Amino acid sequence: MIILLDAMGGDNAPDANIKGAVKAINQIEAEVVLIGNKDVINSKIKEFYGKNDVSEISDRLKIHHTTETIEMCDIPTQAIKHKKDSSMVVGFKLLKEGNGDVFISAGNSGALLTGATLLVGRIKGIDRPALAGILPAYKGRLMLMDCGSNTNCKPINLLQFAQMATIYNRNTFGIEHPTVGLLNIGTEETKGNELVKESYRLLKEKAEELNINFVGNVEGRDAFSGKLDVLIADGYTGNVFLKTVEGVGKLVKRTLKESIKKNVFRMIGALPAMPSINSLAKAMDYKEYGGALFLGVKKPVVKAHGSSDERLFEFTIKQAEQFVKNKAVDQMIEYFEK
Amino acid sequence: MIILLDAMGGDNAPDANIKGAVKAINQIEAEVVLIGNKDVINSKIKEFYGKNDVSEISDRLKIHHTTETIEMCDIPTQAIKHKKDSSMVVGFKLLKEGNGDVFISAGNSGALLTGATLLVGRIKGIDRPALAGILPAYKGRLMLMDCGSNTNCKPINLLQFAQMATIYNRNTFGIEHPTVGLLNIGTEETKGNELVKESYRLLKEKAEELNINFVGNVEGRDAFSGKLDVLIADGYTGNVFLKTVEGVGKLVKRTLKESIKKNVFRMIGALPAMPSINSLAKAMDYKEYGGALFLGVKKPVVKAHGSSDERLFEFTIKQAEQFVKNKAVDQMIEYFEK
Repeated sequence: MIILLDAMGGDNAPDANIKGAVKAINQIEAEVVLIGNKDVINSKIKEFYGKNDVSEISDRLKIHHTTETIEMCDIPTQAIKHKKDSSMVVGFKLLKEGNGDVFISAGNSGALLTGATLLVGRIKGIDRPALAGILPAYKGRLMLMDCGSNTNCKPINLLQFAQMATIYNRNTFGIEHPTVGLLNIGTEETKGNELVKESYRLLKEKAEELNINFVGNVEGRDAFSGKLDVLIADGYTGNVFLKTVEGVGKLVKRTLKESIKKNVFRMIGALPAMPSINSLAKAMDYKEYGGALFLGVKKPVVKAHGSSDERLFEFTIKQAEQFVKNKAVDQMIEYFEK
Repeated sequence: MIILLDAMGGDNAPDANIKGAVKAINQIEAEVVLIGNKDVINSKIKEFYGKNDVSEISDRLKIHHTTETIEMCDIPTQAIKHKKDSSMVVGFKLLKEGNGDVFISAGNSGALLTGATLLVGRIKGIDRPALAGILPAYKGRLMLMDCGSNTNCKPINLLQFAQMATIYNRNTFGIEHPTVGLLNIGTEETKGNELVKESYRLLKEKAEELNINFVGNVEGRDAFSGKLDVLIADGYTGNVFLKTVEGVGKLVKRTLKESIKKNVFRMIGALPAMPSINSLAKAMDYKEYGGALFLGVKKPVVKAHGSSDERLFEFTIKQAEQFVKNKAVDQMIEYFEK
């Protein structure tokens, strides 16, 4: 297996990308190809590890040289069209041509989604591919789809998100009938805006035929109960949800830290509780749950968090290997193109 | 001052409503009128306090007898029209006629908003009144408006929410130029759905003229930084945001509790940290911040949380007294009707 990693994308590139790959390489079986400027990568390898070449670190660590980088401020479609030798465009080409099994990038999100759709291609039967993210839940996890790739959706898109997420959960997590909820502001079917009301009707109507275990509308307050496997939303609402989770998580960490620091007695008193507090902080950090999977395109594409650090790259690379091993994309192609 | 309290509305009515009023009465100067069935209320007073009449508890505690109750399952407009002797409809009438200064209800939200608009009336110049809720933030608070009363909004509605929230923050919290952000999925002005993009343009265009300190788009991840005073959203998105905050809060509490209980050593170890953990739990609980204010109608109306317990009713009653004292509604009328 070959994992293609955009070495130049992300807020902490290329340092975090390279360090993450080095950390991951001995925990996986796959090859990792760092796609980016060879000179830059090699000088970092020298600086961080005192080696002259990536091969001295592992014979499964490679470099694929490119000369351009898509920046965060680039306009997605233009960048994909014109920056032919960028780490992202080259990554997609290698993936499409079969010279890699999965592509990971923490770069410009818009460009990544545009590139995946244009260069790798949609699965026949899927109108809109979408980002599936994994969030913490009570004694479990929650898959959110769409995390933000489609700002404007139609009910049919949400139905397809439900189908894809169901296949993924069944295949990868071994949940035969994953529970699927529709993010809404009330549980009654009369609640919500037009999109969500129509999506509810469509999901309800098609659930049995498509083997979706649709449990109806779910409010954000009940999303993390651990009983829900999949939460479906249009990309706008899904992204509001995702970033709110992140915001509250940040607030929790900060408040707890300050509250403990308030006085020295509290601080000393808190020391024995630190394992509990740390495991909470870990459970609350959705980055612990890795990158988001771009489902609906013909090959595995993983969107790493833009602010990924080396630890998160390490985690996302391991997650990507699992993504390929589980053949989720193949199963989706088989299901939708049948 | 007279505070009108719907004694029959809410998941824990009338017990929590009555107990909350009794707890609050000695902490406030105002009269509290319990609106509801006299026999039911008096039998509860007997049961809880061994008294024959509310006057034995305080001469500022009264009952206004009504015979009907609007249930959670009632259709809002029909309930307001037909249940003329319900605690909610009577509450609005007393408020409108000047026999009370503020009305609090934890009952059917739709009926409360419909009733406030139909029976009390909108302020001239306001197209859509909306719910303003107070949430925790880092070393501070965040006002969210609209919390969920208007599922479908136009940009002009969001502009008016920004105006009302600005007046409220200036007047009640003494913040001369409260920072106002627009909830969105990115900070760039090109981000978001059509409503939010147009609202951004309108807010930017009108900010100076209307003396709104508009700071642009704000993502959920940055909303709780403590630097933002007001977060504006349409009622659908605002409600998704609000309930997601609640959901994460619940997850935090539950995870922390379980994590501490995991083994007895951890539990004992955690004891000295309990003040910190409790103050976090308190800071995370948006119920601590009271009910939501229905801004844009001619009199003060407070929507108490549907699941309010006695502690929350106590808090909301004190908050309502403050709401009247600060004359926020009068200032809004003066501003918009000028």
